[in-house]
Amino acid sequence: MSATKAYKNMSTAELEALYTQLQEEFSTFKSKNLHLDMSRGKPEKGQLRLSADMLTCVTDAMLDSAEPDVRNYGLPNGIPEMRQLFADMLHVPVEEVLAGGNSSLNMMYDTIARAMQFGVLGSKTPWSKLDKVKFLCPAPGYDRHFAICELFGIEMIPVPMTAEGPEMDLVETLVSTDAAIKGIWCVPKYSNPTGITYSDAVVRRLANLKPAATDFRIFWDNAYCVHHLYGEYQPDTLLNIMDESKKAGNPDMVFMFASTSKITYPGAGVAAMVASIDNLKFIQKQLTIQTIGPDKINQFRHVAFLKDMDGVTRLMQQHADIIRPKFAVVLEKLEAILGNCEIASWTKPNGGYFISVDVMEGCAKRVGALCKEAGVVLTPPGVTFPYGKDPKDENIRIAPTYPPMEELIVAMDLFCLCVRLAAIEKLLNK
Amino acid sequence: MSATKAYKNMSTAELEALYTQLQEEFSTFKSKNLHLDMSRGKPEKGQLRLSADMLTCVTDAMLDSAEPDVRNYGLPNGIPEMRQLFADMLHVPVEEVLAGGNSSLNMMYDTIARAMQFGVLGSKTPWSKLDKVKFLCPAPGYDRHFAICELFGIEMIPVPMTAEGPEMDLVETLVSTDAAIKGIWCVPKYSNPTGITYSDAVVRRLANLKPAATDFRIFWDNAYCVHHLYGEYQPDTLLNIMDESKKAGNPDMVFMFASTSKITYPGAGVAAMVASIDNLKFIQKQLTIQTIGPDKINQFRHVAFLKDMDGVTRLMQQHADIIRPKFAVVLEKLEAILGNCEIASWTKPNGGYFISVDVMEGCAKRVGALCKEAGVVLTPPGVTFPYGKDPKDENIRIAPTYPPMEELIVAMDLFCLCVRLAAIEKLLNK
Repeated sequence: MSATKAYKNMSTAELEALYTQLQEEFSTFKSKNLHLDMSRGKPEKGQLRLSADMLTCVTDAMLDSAEPDVRNYGLPNGIPEMRQLFADMLHVPVEEVLAGGNSSLNMMYDTIARAMQFGVLGSKTPWSKLDKVKFLCPAPGYDRHFAICELFGIEMIPVPMTAEGPEMDLVETLVSTDAAIKGIWCVPKYSNPTGITYSDAVVRRLANLKPAATDFRIFWDNAYCVHHLYGEYQPDTLLNIMDESKKAGNPDMVFMFASTSKITYPGAGVAAMVASIDNLKFIQKQLTIQTIGPDKINQFRHVAFLKDMDGVTRLMQQHADIIRPKFAVVLEKLEAILGNCEIASWTKPNGGYFISVDVMEGCAKRVGALCKEAGVVLTPPGVTFPYGKDPKDENIRIAPTYPPMEELIVAMDLFCLCVRLAAIEKLLNK
Repeated sequence: MSATKAYKNMSTAELEALYTQLQEEFSTFKSKNLHLDMSRGKPEKGQLRLSADMLTCVTDAMLDSAEPDVRNYGLPNGIPEMRQLFADMLHVPVEEVLAGGNSSLNMMYDTIARAMQFGVLGSKTPWSKLDKVKFLCPAPGYDRHFAICELFGIEMIPVPMTAEGPEMDLVETLVSTDAAIKGIWCVPKYSNPTGITYSDAVVRRLANLKPAATDFRIFWDNAYCVHHLYGEYQPDTLLNIMDESKKAGNPDMVFMFASTSKITYPGAGVAAMVASIDNLKFIQKQLTIQTIGPDKINQFRHVAFLKDMDGVTRLMQQHADIIRPKFAVVLEKLEAILGNCEIASWTKPNGGYFISVDVMEGCAKRVGALCKEAGVVLTPPGVTFPYGKDPKDENIRIAPTYPPMEELIVAMDLFCLCVRLAAIEKLLNK
């Protein structure tokens, strides 16, 4: 199946012949009536089973003797032990950690919603009262971040992603000159979807921004902070932006988010927000009206199960052992089938949940449509960009973790086939 | 200790003598260095222990075989079984139930926040873009409802509470004439704090309102729907406002809320919102951006533990067995110490978490201050009214459930003493 030379060096006749052959392969796939899903970054069942003991590790006797009683109301910032675990995980002071409910996305949404309604610390005006609010959106990025902006009518300005993070010259220029720019979305480690980790230089430049807006915030979604694929051998390292922003005299500029959604359970984990004490004080004026507090029993359960960072590291190695072969299969298929074609490039992340593939310009939507036609659902091409618009129509996010291995292999064969078909269609102007 | 005649019939000399005697009693209390709390409607430890089995009743094997897998992402409206349990509890169709996270207060806050930002179904304008938004606030009522309004700058119009619910003549007049009135807060069953249940006539009149605003909503906080004190013997019954509003041609006018916070665990229960399917569709456009979904494992746990309405009823009887004696002590103390004084009146609820005491006009804050001086924390007088302002300064909310019985007895002795002291001070213009 593998190509022996770059498509650009093939004659029209060669391409036509190859296209006919690939179309036959495509028909064979279609006849299999596949229903495969590579669309979202969901753990597979084997990963979910790793946290089995958490379900039953907390007994009433343990809770009955604990003070304060986590079964009752109270502790709006979460239980101290859970806050400490996040503090250790994110290398921040425990006083700056707010341990919340089951969804960091919800915490991010709430943070934007509060900013719209009330502003943030340093705002002269609630954001919703301003003529225009803009966010920088390093792209490709996380579609759900962009969806929040779109819902609130926040104008999104795409910023190209490099192998080191967002293109900082552009970020610095925009942030320092346009006071309508109130924030930037970042997934700084094992970035969604490219899998890269921001370099120290990028983190420092972000921490040292001189925003025109007095109430500019970096939304630092550290979703994959401990989500290494290769255990302790070659994890990426990320500079601590909380420390750097303090050094830079910008102590209030960062809102950090994280969760155990892909450590323990998606949707039944614990989320955290990290911010300066002054930021937290400002937020709590609203937060204590919004809720009496998070689910503290689930926090207690997490601490009892994970215990400490050693426990987290051990568990993450078990996750890695399950999903690493899946990442390997995706990369092997891409290399084996597309390696010499020069019609696609891809990232080789050391962690996270995604592999990002750039196909030939103008071909991503066609690849998605072809895959769908043959029964494989991809993350819809485009959604990794603001407003769902990939200007080059080239980026596709592969999420290898959820499908069983045998399905992933089939899905990747089909995916690579569709990349080839779409490329030839473009080269032949079909 | 009990008074033999009404204070209004006592001479100045008699009152002075009594005051001196009561002051001595007060000094004795103060010397005890009490630290007692009757301020909030929190379950006591014995109640928390009732749900012990819920902590460990769900095993990984149960989840591993269930479809869809509740450990993973998905089901933004909650799991079907939890929605059904709420549907049975609230006598509504399961399609109209959204089973959420751990806090119905949070769902109410979010509902207001969304209305401010985006309006509700039928809104011409998001509420935050209007010059003025007003809510009717039957008072005394729940302080946390009022706090939400205050935070969002919603003007609160107090409506007097009667033994049958809010004064409906006033509600009808205001709602039908003032389009700035967008909502009304109701705790219709075992009301916080008066403990009364809305009569059928009041529910029907609410369901048949003809609001001037096209986007008026009844916020129906059915927090104590199954929280009977006297088991199955003499529970209050509440007419189903969802049915009535449909009959009245107002199918979208009601947002209902409930939770298991005082069935299983405060803060680690499951909350629900009930609304018409059209309302839910409108809300979900925002909700699906806000979160990927609620904690479904906790919902599964609740269903596994409670099973069905028979299970809920049995558990609520166990709760009632624990807190009924506490309500009895409060009522006995009030009757024994204040019964003949004619300086206070109080409610005798059949359920819920509170007993509401009206002391002599202008005396509530003084009673609170005296109690505090002697080491007993009450719900701060006034907070049961919009802006914390009880126009008559007479209402005090007693929350009998949390303190152990021996502490409750002492606290009530002190409370009644303070009511007497404050009354005499008023009568003697001290």
